[in-house]
Amino acid sequence: MILDKINNSKDLKNLTVDEMTLLADEMRELIIKKVNAIGGHMGPNLGIVETTIAMHYVFDMPVDKVVFDVSHQCYPHKILTGRKDGFTNPENYFKYTGYTAPEESEYDLFKIGHTSTSVSLATGVAKARDLKGENYNVIALIGDGSLSGGEALEGLDNAAVLNSNIIIVVNDNEMSIAENHGGIYDNLKLLRETKGQAECNFFKSLGFDYLYVEEGNNIQEMISAFEKVKGTKKPIVVHIHTLKGKGLEPAEENKESFHYILAGTLDEKPETASAPAVETYTSLTREFIRNKIKSDKRAIVVNAGTPGVFGFDKEYREDLGSQYTDVGIAEEHAVAYSSALAKSGAKPIFTVMSSFIQRTYDQLSQDLGLNNSPLTILVYWGGISGADATHLCTFDIPMVSNIPNLVYMSPTNKEEYLAMLEYAYNQNERPVAIRVPMTELVSTGIPDTTDYSQINKYKVVTQGEKVAILGLGNFFSLAGEVKEYLRSELGIDATLINPVYTTGIDVELLENLKQNHELVITLEDGVLDGGFGEKISRFYGNSDMKTLNYGAKKEFTDRVPLQELYERYHLTKELILKDVKETLKEKVCG
Amino acid sequence: MILDKINNSKDLKNLTVDEMTLLADEMRELIIKKVNAIGGHMGPNLGIVETTIAMHYVFDMPVDKVVFDVSHQCYPHKILTGRKDGFTNPENYFKYTGYTAPEESEYDLFKIGHTSTSVSLATGVAKARDLKGENYNVIALIGDGSLSGGEALEGLDNAAVLNSNIIIVVNDNEMSIAENHGGIYDNLKLLRETKGQAECNFFKSLGFDYLYVEEGNNIQEMISAFEKVKGTKKPIVVHIHTLKGKGLEPAEENKESFHYILAGTLDEKPETASAPAVETYTSLTREFIRNKIKSDKRAIVVNAGTPGVFGFDKEYREDLGSQYTDVGIAEEHAVAYSSALAKSGAKPIFTVMSSFIQRTYDQLSQDLGLNNSPLTILVYWGGISGADATHLCTFDIPMVSNIPNLVYMSPTNKEEYLAMLEYAYNQNERPVAIRVPMTELVSTGIPDTTDYSQINKYKVVTQGEKVAILGLGNFFSLAGEVKEYLRSELGIDATLINPVYTTGIDVELLENLKQNHELVITLEDGVLDGGFGEKISRFYGNSDMKTLNYGAKKEFTDRVPLQELYERYHLTKELILKDVKETLKEKVCG
Repeated sequence: MILDKINNSKDLKNLTVDEMTLLADEMRELIIKKVNAIGGHMGPNLGIVETTIAMHYVFDMPVDKVVFDVSHQCYPHKILTGRKDGFTNPENYFKYTGYTAPEESEYDLFKIGHTSTSVSLATGVAKARDLKGENYNVIALIGDGSLSGGEALEGLDNAAVLNSNIIIVVNDNEMSIAENHGGIYDNLKLLRETKGQAECNFFKSLGFDYLYVEEGNNIQEMISAFEKVKGTKKPIVVHIHTLKGKGLEPAEENKESFHYILAGTLDEKPETASAPAVETYTSLTREFIRNKIKSDKRAIVVNAGTPGVFGFDKEYREDLGSQYTDVGIAEEHAVAYSSALAKSGAKPIFTVMSSFIQRTYDQLSQDLGLNNSPLTILVYWGGISGADATHLCTFDIPMVSNIPNLVYMSPTNKEEYLAMLEYAYNQNERPVAIRVPMTELVSTGIPDTTDYSQINKYKVVTQGEKVAILGLGNFFSLAGEVKEYLRSELGIDATLINPVYTTGIDVELLENLKQNHELVITLEDGVLDGGFGEKISRFYGNSDMKTLNYGAKKEFTDRVPLQELYERYHLTKELILKDVKETLKEKVCG
Repeated sequence: MILDKINNSKDLKNLTVDEMTLLADEMRELIIKKVNAIGGHMGPNLGIVETTIAMHYVFDMPVDKVVFDVSHQCYPHKILTGRKDGFTNPENYFKYTGYTAPEESEYDLFKIGHTSTSVSLATGVAKARDLKGENYNVIALIGDGSLSGGEALEGLDNAAVLNSNIIIVVNDNEMSIAENHGGIYDNLKLLRETKGQAECNFFKSLGFDYLYVEEGNNIQEMISAFEKVKGTKKPIVVHIHTLKGKGLEPAEENKESFHYILAGTLDEKPETASAPAVETYTSLTREFIRNKIKSDKRAIVVNAGTPGVFGFDKEYREDLGSQYTDVGIAEEHAVAYSSALAKSGAKPIFTVMSSFIQRTYDQLSQDLGLNNSPLTILVYWGGISGADATHLCTFDIPMVSNIPNLVYMSPTNKEEYLAMLEYAYNQNERPVAIRVPMTELVSTGIPDTTDYSQINKYKVVTQGEKVAILGLGNFFSLAGEVKEYLRSELGIDATLINPVYTTGIDVELLENLKQNHELVITLEDGVLDGGFGEKISRFYGNSDMKTLNYGAKKEFTDRVPLQELYERYHLTKELILKDVKETLKEKVCG
């Protein structure tokens, strides 16, 4: 194998183009095998193999530097930079992250997983180089799908006036995760069709020099292109046309499903990658939305470039027609756009993944909260997980809950969720976000008739005494376990409460608890700092009521097994019991 | 006066162009008089008078709808929409806000004050119109300076594919608040120079139809332009060239100082609008930065289009040369760019206003925090104020403090501030934000030798007993007053603590307080929800220690006098004493 000779990017220099072409096949085989074995980003990595080889062949890495956008296309880069053992040996499949990671290699500059950051970061790297009087190439490698993000557009506008060396490689595979949306994509199409010759050129309009490469999967073509721009003294965009999923037939044909695949996908029928068979909170949401769209012409669902997260497959999206807007990767616009839709009498539902709602703080505050638009926001995947540090979903509660006017609700079962969806959709008073449960679907079988317009009214599920347990959303079931455990272990008949709202305090209920309770326990599936529990502790601060807040520590965890995190954060009934014992023992009064 | 005949936009329809030209002069006079009397945005409003008149003449407001960007150019619009009494009668000068406000008039769609939002909002308004099968014009009026914001660029990319009526009026006065920065401005220049004929057109590259108007301050020209585009079925950009500050000589000559002026500026020499005479925290910062720039080629200061906030006047900026970057209104890019600068061995200092750091949550988390880049961030104007709802600076503590790896410090005097600046600048471990004090400058005269690398180590200023007062940043002096008041009124010798860090807990110190304290009081100059005090209350939740947290309520206040807010939030020594008495009385134990 050619790969045997390659331990880092310098070893490429001795290869012929034919050898590098063989190397590309070898790398592709490794990527397909590994990704199918453990899951991961298939399409993006298969499409960028030749470009990565050519880049490492032409440039002098790690002196020359590359910043990957999202970095879900960095597998070939990792293979060529001393980490091939993570691909050749199945025992090492989990040794390296699926994203660039400076702690793994000097060839990786940043820890990245959110989109549209590469151009800004590369501009900073280049400016630092200039300040220090150094001299090397700085490359940003960004996919066409990421171009629509505000951070990328701000970055391009500024990179263009850097007035020194920066090379923006735009990897145009004609796809975002799903299809692209936005005017810029018509321009990319025009540029592809004219082989880069069209006068109306988005990149040139910003002031970039521009080079088009039709065959981005041809190593010789890419080598020639990179040799042309190496050492440039001016900002230049190299617009390359590549094939997403190249070399794997189902991935080439079904680009969206093969953007990211679960382990074993190739061993089954690709179709199974789509809609779930059993009823889940996702399928409930899909049905709710579809029914609203069909029965109410004012209804519209908005998302920002990640329809797969919500189970919005192609057929489903086409069925929604003009009442579906994918704004592309543009979360800020998505919130402002949805706020205006709501303010103008439409009935928008904005669906977003917890990790990505982080991109909209000011829009949630100014465009939405300040204007009090009756928008429904559905937040997916919120909760502690074993995810990469780049995709944690533990910060949405602190981020959303401390913005005025926003109401953030956490359902605990199917009937509650459906009732909250109806409330959020039908009301006209305020923005309402709902944290879609991350748990298995729980059904009481009894329709929920709660009046959710009574904001911050908590639900007492079972009235007890001495200890009250507030189990928010995903952790309501844990609260129930703790209640039972306190009974069996301490003979305490605890009060079980479903607080429903993360954004506020039920003053009357909390006051009443003082009468026959000594301790209030809060459980939330997110970081504690700035979250729900702290609001409860503040409320009881001037009283004799004791409080114990449970949730995640304020930290970036990176692929730590969930159970290990639960132990670390005392999110088990045994560890909570231990704390309760100590707290009640310590308690002098009552 | 022509204006006497104008009570709302419909009354314009009967005027001749000559009458409207006279009207423009009358309106200009009113604006100059009012803004000089109470302060406000002078340049932007003077430049947009003719455009506003023509818009209200041609379109059928309020059926046709306009969304202003930032809306600091809405005074002429207010005069023409039933609110002229707020300009003609000095007694009503404070009757209406300086921004669009739906509660004031049906002609105002949104409450707006942050930039770059109009295109996204207008796109939502237009889409709602289409969903409901209605038919009217939707206009977004955005200044050239706001175009560089990610939200605006995301909005343009999406507005371009709306496939129905939307009119984007780009008000090009060749200025942001200061001069423009970014590649897009070279294209605007090219378009002006070619009277809109250049093939390389940023807006066309996104797919917009495009119309250029050279004389944006000529009513007839603007009427003709608007009549051309009225009823368009396709997204179109109307690029108009106007003169910022038109009609007021000093404002035309000194566009930056006259973007926003303080009351009475015209009665003095305009120069006085710039650098302060006495020493302030702002002047200290200017000097600190200048010294670093002069002594360290790695040093660089970054800001996002608001240099005036930091006292970076033209001369100062030119003096910094290539070690100064104004990215334009592009806060997301500013953080990622600065993070990369820091990661690459430069010494960046990012200066930002509290209200605008809200635009960077995900960049603070992902580009900066996750990568732990040693960036220094200086946050200005943080604290409770009587500002417009759109420019509140009370949310930075909750927003910044709950992101991992970030350290957020609050100095209480000159010497501390300088020592923190040195620490933040020289260390290489982590991102450090400093909240520049909003108080009068306080100097101890004694150099501060604290080792600030001991993160979360609070300072015990005076050791007492029973009650401990944690006075954060701006409120440290109030904490001192409360301490004295508790002594004189209750004979309590309270412990006074300067917590320094908003981002964490000094476990050892807080533990020790348990020995001879019953109550811990926290004071912070920002919203309580998700802030500093709640972290203290959570810490003491399972103990007998009582806590009282003081700060702002989670709400959008709108030009409420500061003293009234202090009363509302119990931020006076008298009200705090009252709470302390009740709390200590309630306390059964100890």
